[in-house]
Amino acid sequence: MKDELKEYGHLINNALEKYLEAKDENSRLVYEAMQYSTFAGGKRLRPVLLLATYRLFKEEIKTAIPFAAAIEMIHTYSLIHDDLPAMDDDDYRRGKLTNHKVFGEGIAILAGDGLLNKAYEVLLNEIMKAKDPMIVSQAASIIGNAAGVRGMIAGQVADIISEDQEISSKDLDYIHAHKTGALIEAAMVSGAILADAKSQDIEKIQQVGKNLGLAFQIKDDVLDIIGDEKQLGKKIGSDEAKEKSTYPKLYGLDACQRMIQELTEESNRILDEYLPQSKFLKELNNYLMDRKN
Amino acid sequence: MKDELKEYGHLINNALEKYLEAKDENSRLVYEAMQYSTFAGGKRLRPVLLLATYRLFKEEIKTAIPFAAAIEMIHTYSLIHDDLPAMDDDDYRRGKLTNHKVFGEGIAILAGDGLLNKAYEVLLNEIMKAKDPMIVSQAASIIGNAAGVRGMIAGQVADIISEDQEISSKDLDYIHAHKTGALIEAAMVSGAILADAKSQDIEKIQQVGKNLGLAFQIKDDVLDIIGDEKQLGKKIGSDEAKEKSTYPKLYGLDACQRMIQELTEESNRILDEYLPQSKFLKELNNYLMDRKN
Repeated sequence: MKDELKEYGHLINNALEKYLEAKDENSRLVYEAMQYSTFAGGKRLRPVLLLATYRLFKEEIKTAIPFAAAIEMIHTYSLIHDDLPAMDDDDYRRGKLTNHKVFGEGIAILAGDGLLNKAYEVLLNEIMKAKDPMIVSQAASIIGNAAGVRGMIAGQVADIISEDQEISSKDLDYIHAHKTGALIEAAMVSGAILADAKSQDIEKIQQVGKNLGLAFQIKDDVLDIIGDEKQLGKKIGSDEAKEKSTYPKLYGLDACQRMIQELTEESNRILDEYLPQSKFLKELNNYLMDRKN
Repeated sequence: MKDELKEYGHLINNALEKYLEAKDENSRLVYEAMQYSTFAGGKRLRPVLLLATYRLFKEEIKTAIPFAAAIEMIHTYSLIHDDLPAMDDDDYRRGKLTNHKVFGEGIAILAGDGLLNKAYEVLLNEIMKAKDPMIVSQAASIIGNAAGVRGMIAGQVADIISEDQEISSKDLDYIHAHKTGALIEAAMVSGAILADAKSQDIEKIQQVGKNLGLAFQIKDDVLDIIGDEKQLGKKIGSDEAKEKSTYPKLYGLDACQRMIQELTEESNRILDEYLPQSKFLKELNNYLMDRKN
């Protein structure tokens, strides 16, 4: 798994560096802010999933790289805005100061805006160059819908509204499915579409994406209770301090561990149909289930 | 002019209403915030310019309406974020409370994000449906570049950095050309591209867009000094209070009036080549030069 992860990481980072190169002196500061959060040590989960899913169906991944970079820019923008004082008000992320702590709130808001917009500039540019614009615009549209007010933003809004409130398991499912799940699912689905996968394959990949997104979020909640602060690069217990509703709070830790395992096993059974190409995704899936940060 | 302005206004508002209809109860609040600023009485300058430019080259404008709505959503998002305490910190716009004063900062940031993202959802959807995806994606890309860190956001960053500072006329040109000019120019250029105009026509339209954008901004600066507060719906003198660099401050009011007139006349000479279709745009141009708000 490690070799492929390294290969994907290189491809993604090179593309991001190219897209985020400052264009002139007047706007240098916002580029610096965009670069700061983009290269602050994220796992690159979404772009890796996009590339690895693409590779289930096609070997050469050049076409998919701009999409991988775009989805990581969208993810990074959402983190910058989420960390703002008006939202989650976090000073640290992955052991580093958050964007607004370094650049100030105004520039942090604009850096987020800039990353979101740049993602679409990249996607539109790919559509213009495409041999088959229909496929490429479909894949871009999947990402667009997942990032918007029917996806990630809806989850963030529901999360803000539910703060300091008891919420139902249904509302918690809504928040997770939208806030984290939508973009993870979109990474895999758009990768499959881009590789011209058949519609029955896209449906199966979508199920894997749904499971992975939910398992990932439950694991995050679990780590916030039993994780190691050094390995996590942040303080644990922040959900409880903010009285956030989480899966462990609603179901207990043991049930959460079982859910993570079941979701992962179901995904792996689907991925078995795509062996040997799916070997990496299965390993990644298992790694995510057991991860410490 | 009034009949066409009314027709365009209806088309734009109907499209915006359709795109901003709440999808579920959990995200209702962010839709309300998006609607609030979108229907807060804006002039619809950018979408009207897009539609009217399209009509210089093609009569039926159905194809252009989603583009007009998208560019207005991008403009509205930029206003919501500009008004935030971390940016311009404005409590009122067009005589109404700003978005964050009504919905709180967190929701206002998300409403801006939601509008920006929705604009691209709409554009990508149009590309997928297009008979000629190349033309449609080119037009979308023009808007994307103008809205991003090489366009509008670069202008906003330069504006923030220059606050409380003496700046050169070159820096002021940069701020205006990017912050306001880029999207106005993009409205006209994308309208022309979408209507399949020839490249020499697109170049001419681009010059009109540049002039109009600059004249519009100088007029805004002038109105902030000699405008009528009731007609403007906001207090005058805010630029001076914030010690902002403006054209009147650098060149004096008389020179500004002359610049506005010269830019408008040059645009009208270009538009004369497109008569009778350009009658509306010429009238709009003259109206903008003489406007009181």
